[in-house]
Amino acid sequence: MYSLGIDIGSTTSKGAILEDGRRIVSTSLRKAGIGTDGPREVVQDLLRASDLDEGQIGVTVATGYGRTLYPGAHYRVSELTCHALGAHFIFPGIRTLIDIGGQDAKAISLDGSGRMSNFQMNDKCAAGTGRFLDVMAGILQLHAGDLAGEAALAESICPISSTCTVFAESEVISHLAQGVNRKDLVAGICESVATRTGSLAKRVGVTPPLAMSGGVALNEGVRGALSRYLEVEILFSPLAQFFGGLGAALYGYQTYNKEN
Amino acid sequence: MYSLGIDIGSTTSKGAILEDGRRIVSTSLRKAGIGTDGPREVVQDLLRASDLDEGQIGVTVATGYGRTLYPGAHYRVSELTCHALGAHFIFPGIRTLIDIGGQDAKAISLDGSGRMSNFQMNDKCAAGTGRFLDVMAGILQLHAGDLAGEAALAESICPISSTCTVFAESEVISHLAQGVNRKDLVAGICESVATRTGSLAKRVGVTPPLAMSGGVALNEGVRGALSRYLEVEILFSPLAQFFGGLGAALYGYQTYNKEN
Ligand code: SF4
Repeated sequence: MYSLGIDIGSTTSKGAILEDGRRIVSTSLRKAGIGTDGPREVVQDLLRASDLDEGQIGVTVATGYGRTLYPGAHYRVSELTCHALGAHFIFPGIRTLIDIGGQDAKAISLDGSGRMSNFQMNDKCAAGTGRFLDVMAGILQLHAGDLAGEAALAESICPISSTCTVFAESEVISHLAQGVNRKDLVAGICESVATRTGSLAKRVGVTPPLAMSGGVALNEGVRGALSRYLEVEILFSPLAQFFGGLGAALYGYQTYNKEN
Repeated sequence: MYSLGIDIGSTTSKGAILEDGRRIVSTSLRKAGIGTDGPREVVQDLLRASDLDEGQIGVTVATGYGRTLYPGAHYRVSELTCHALGAHFIFPGIRTLIDIGGQDAKAISLDGSGRMSNFQMNDKCAAGTGRFLDVMAGILQLHAGDLAGEAALAESICPISSTCTVFAESEVISHLAQGVNRKDLVAGICESVATRTGSLAKRVGVTPPLAMSGGVALNEGVRGALSRYLEVEILFSPLAQFFGGLGAALYGYQTYNKEN
């Protein structure tokens, strides 16, 4: 039995197909989120990569910010529920999940069996989200994907004192003008995101094992800074961007099994 | 007896000379704040406009964010104290002052005799400050000084749902792409600043008479929106940018009189 989960975010669409709620058959990501063709393209990618046609999918579950606008779903499930399920699927027994997306960040406490017990969310302020990194990368004439590589080469961390993205932008520009090394600035930028999201995590309680998900989880600079800030090891999976989609597919499988 | 007050902000320097703590002899503003020649130029402007030389100034008081870096002051006094004094000088008996500057905003409660009794401040987030207006003006290819005029011509207010400057920026760009009238957008932008600062004011209590100060007070669009939001009349003086400097000069006069 195949279940498909689709996670429609503000900047990206991500999806996964599971076989019998156990085996990952395929995953797909498109850099186009809510209100675009991204979700439809992800579903087409998934079917093609799995060599399946739509009729073979037993159940489809949509999650994420754009889930209500997606027509082809049997169920629409909160992203918190799906992220928790997906994180537990990859890291069984996980107790804390920190998800940093393109425009928001959340910290989720789990009960050890894949259920969310508490959460804290920031979806109002660009600081501490992928958007902060995008803005800073723009100023430094880098791609957001290159930030981690730059940070890794830093000789020291140039701290960014403003938390606000707008004020931090001016701060970075003035540091650059004063001749601060770009790599050290990038390290400071990664630290800024880590500190901001780390304080979100402290509000739900930092119980290990702890994992990170979302696009920003791929950034080793942020991950390292967050690990130092929280004084805890951070589990990482290359599937970090698919926790929502995997959780949605798993939810579909479990619900389908209960009802049939 | 002449007293000079200088108010050194993040983006501007402002000053005033008072005669006997009563008559305003001169005022000056330069669009250059902390760490620039702005403060020195303001003092030169003031002396020139008053036809005085430095030796004739009995006392000089510095206030504002940059007061500690200014060498020529006999006293350095908190901007809250000076704003309260200056507001009471212009509007005797004033009970609430809302000051929106280039990078911060504050709401001050006064006891009716020019003394601050409570305050709330935002100096961490660009939303609800002059910086928000500058960013939005940039997107709309306007000068910040033209926003009020545009807002006055709006046929309806296009609300901006994001409070965050960064997210509001994207929202304004997408409204523009959808063909929303620029004037209606500017009205929404003014309303956003008013709502944000209005909620700051509600936290100290909105007791009339209430006045507005700071550079953003010159913007009638924000003033009107704030008046509607708080359901209270807002007193306005063309000297709105000089409350800090006037208060500093007044503080100087009072202190000089006590000590001599
Ligand atoms: S602090 Fe800066 S980034 Fe955060 S909401 Fe305010 S303007 Fe946006």
